[in-house]
Amino acid sequence: MRMYDVIEKKRDGKELTKEEISFFIEGYTKGEIPDYQASALCMAIYFRGMTEAETVTLTECMAKSGDTLDLSMFGELTADKHSTGGVGDKTTLIVAPVVASLGGVVTKMSGRGLGHTGGTVDKLEAIPGYRTSLSEEEFISQSKRIGIAVIGQTGNLTPADKKLYALRDVTATVNSIPLITSSIMSKKLAAGSKNIVLDVKYGSGAFMKTTEDAEILADNMVKIGRGCGRNVTAVLTDMNVPLGNNIGNALEVKESIQVLKGEQKDELYDVCVELSSEMVALFKKIPVDDAKKLVVEAIDSGAALNKMREWLGAQGGDVRCIDDTSYLPSAPLMYPVLSDKDGYLTETNAELIGTSAMILGAGRASKEDKIDPAAGIVLCKKPGDKVKKGEALCYLHTSDVSKIKDAEDVFRSAVKFGDEKPEKRPLIYKIIR
Amino acid sequence: MRMYDVIEKKRDGKELTKEEISFFIEGYTKGEIPDYQASALCMAIYFRGMTEAETVTLTECMAKSGDTLDLSMFGELTADKHSTGGVGDKTTLIVAPVVASLGGVVTKMSGRGLGHTGGTVDKLEAIPGYRTSLSEEEFISQSKRIGIAVIGQTGNLTPADKKLYALRDVTATVNSIPLITSSIMSKKLAAGSKNIVLDVKYGSGAFMKTTEDAEILADNMVKIGRGCGRNVTAVLTDMNVPLGNNIGNALEVKESIQVLKGEQKDELYDVCVELSSEMVALFKKIPVDDAKKLVVEAIDSGAALNKMREWLGAQGGDVRCIDDTSYLPSAPLMYPVLSDKDGYLTETNAELIGTSAMILGAGRASKEDKIDPAAGIVLCKKPGDKVKKGEALCYLHTSDVSKIKDAEDVFRSAVKFGDEKPEKRPLIYKIIR
Repeated sequence: MRMYDVIEKKRDGKELTKEEISFFIEGYTKGEIPDYQASALCMAIYFRGMTEAETVTLTECMAKSGDTLDLSMFGELTADKHSTGGVGDKTTLIVAPVVASLGGVVTKMSGRGLGHTGGTVDKLEAIPGYRTSLSEEEFISQSKRIGIAVIGQTGNLTPADKKLYALRDVTATVNSIPLITSSIMSKKLAAGSKNIVLDVKYGSGAFMKTTEDAEILADNMVKIGRGCGRNVTAVLTDMNVPLGNNIGNALEVKESIQVLKGEQKDELYDVCVELSSEMVALFKKIPVDDAKKLVVEAIDSGAALNKMREWLGAQGGDVRCIDDTSYLPSAPLMYPVLSDKDGYLTETNAELIGTSAMILGAGRASKEDKIDPAAGIVLCKKPGDKVKKGEALCYLHTSDVSKIKDAEDVFRSAVKFGDEKPEKRPLIYKIIR
Repeated sequence: MRMYDVIEKKRDGKELTKEEISFFIEGYTKGEIPDYQASALCMAIYFRGMTEAETVTLTECMAKSGDTLDLSMFGELTADKHSTGGVGDKTTLIVAPVVASLGGVVTKMSGRGLGHTGGTVDKLEAIPGYRTSLSEEEFISQSKRIGIAVIGQTGNLTPADKKLYALRDVTATVNSIPLITSSIMSKKLAAGSKNIVLDVKYGSGAFMKTTEDAEILADNMVKIGRGCGRNVTAVLTDMNVPLGNNIGNALEVKESIQVLKGEQKDELYDVCVELSSEMVALFKKIPVDDAKKLVVEAIDSGAALNKMREWLGAQGGDVRCIDDTSYLPSAPLMYPVLSDKDGYLTETNAELIGTSAMILGAGRASKEDKIDPAAGIVLCKKPGDKVKKGEALCYLHTSDVSKIKDAEDVFRSAVKFGDEKPEKRPLIYKIIR
């Protein structure tokens, strides 16, 4: 078999066989197929797409390209959640203990943030002492003991995806549905969970800008996940505005604790209840409405908060921060951005607010950048709120006063005002079960 | 400027600017832009195409990427011919002396053959002593003295095209009209001639299999050549069957001499008269009909044959072969392929006959292969000829008897018979002036 023929076949719009896809992934992972042939194939896939069968094969081949986690000892109880990334998205910190408190086994390998979007591992590292790296033995024994473990991506997981994603990232071939699907789903496959809930974001702060694009991706991921033998549900959620009020790592941990304490029952709470219910419905094999009752009860009773305490403690985190958030890092400077007009707030553009938080030190412009766990933004107003001139729209948290000016400018460009109260956007656009 | 943005822009179907194309070609030639980005761009160009303005810029950038030949001392008299490659295509050997004998300056850098197609340099090297490599001084002074010099591609001519073509060749991105056009025309530009006649072949033995595809390519090359300031004519000629009777290097030199002697007035002669007339019409700025009279006279009078003698002699070739072709290499074995049926010959597939000749040693399967100058095929019958069982269809010339069986099999697969005389195919499909 020759890579040339594989490229040509895809270029001409024909379906690749299992053998051809496996030849590509194995050869590319081993370095036998050069980058320049792989990038030509990715561009051909960008234009020609892939069938469901091709994408299932690609996903399976990438999952098998490195280590895979064997979670079979947990039977059908394992439940994973994946978010396509957003601004202020701290749902893992809330959903994981909720689901674990109801008997699910949540073993997650999470990522770091880049650009305007955050990453769960960065948020967890804001908790003093929290270890985002565990040995496989520690990871499994902790999951057995308390039903939850969340670490950074580790070991030799899906090396084919790592290599291919890095290549796609510099050859303008990221934005292809089958390639996005196989990249995400191969990692989920390798991570071993039987049940997977996908939180597919759409809107200004998301990778997918429109509901149409998000729905195509979600549909595809569900199909491919099922084709690979997993139970998969996708929830399409709004990311035109940040999720919740806090953006920035320690600030998001704080907000998560508030939600688990039952102190904050807003849109963030609603999304977390929805995602948790879908996960519980999958692993318990019960109707979603029944699962939702259990989820609400787990939060109201404090069971989920207790599970968070167990979890953070097991991974070395300072659990005192749960009762007293002053144990979390905090910024020396909290700078209020004041409204310069009266009216209704109509828009808080998630991408721009994420960028503003990144400028303050909460995120990375490039992979090598260091982040400041205390930096971020606390929103005081949300779309639909009436605002008076001189009222604070948000507080910018940072330890670097020189960043304030830029961050404020970007923040101001993110907010829009109107004379009338804007219509409420639905928080959840669709659920694909 | 970032290469990523250039790829993305082309991927999205937008027109690249001069600065972007120049950035790509300069960076790629210098090795600052990696192969994997160049191949992604080529695949995007494959799908999205290029506008005329983009292709002109690409062609000019590639032409300027290395050395260029300054032929301005010859004014408007320089005339080049390019063939897109075929089987039995020895037209350069005939056309060059015809045109030079009429006052044109034919300075050519020719290529080698690969696969089923031959190359002019290989044919010239079949002449004992002929030097396909001259210094620039020798090349120019010979051109001044006798109006003709034909050498192999030399020096640092269009390094961007060399590098890019090698990449396209392994990434299934050769077959793109703007990329083919810029590859061919950049070499013509760098080679310096003011007047260019393109022999665009179509049919089984050609790169372009259909007249439609050949016409699109020819149109594009003419437009781009003119956009780059050259006078360009394209002649679309049939390559469903080999051109002339002889295929193989020394055999083709022999046939060229026959044509220049006026001994062979067949389709090969017709094509050569046509191509020469177009070249003469361009550099003399006279009507083609007038040019044709001069061309026929140059052959009939022996002026063209004398010019060939001067030319070959000037480059060290043994000119005795012109009067006595036994001075050319000849094969120890001439094996007749006999017809196994009665009927009309309806097809002699050029690609398969080229492949058969390659097997005999006349061509290269890969760039590293050595060729046998004496090897090849002499056709005894052409489509439309009546054939009796037992008559020779051709003679296979080779020094390697072990090749006969394979070559015969391929040759037999190339010929078809029918009960009725087939319609004559036009030799020249179209001329784009």
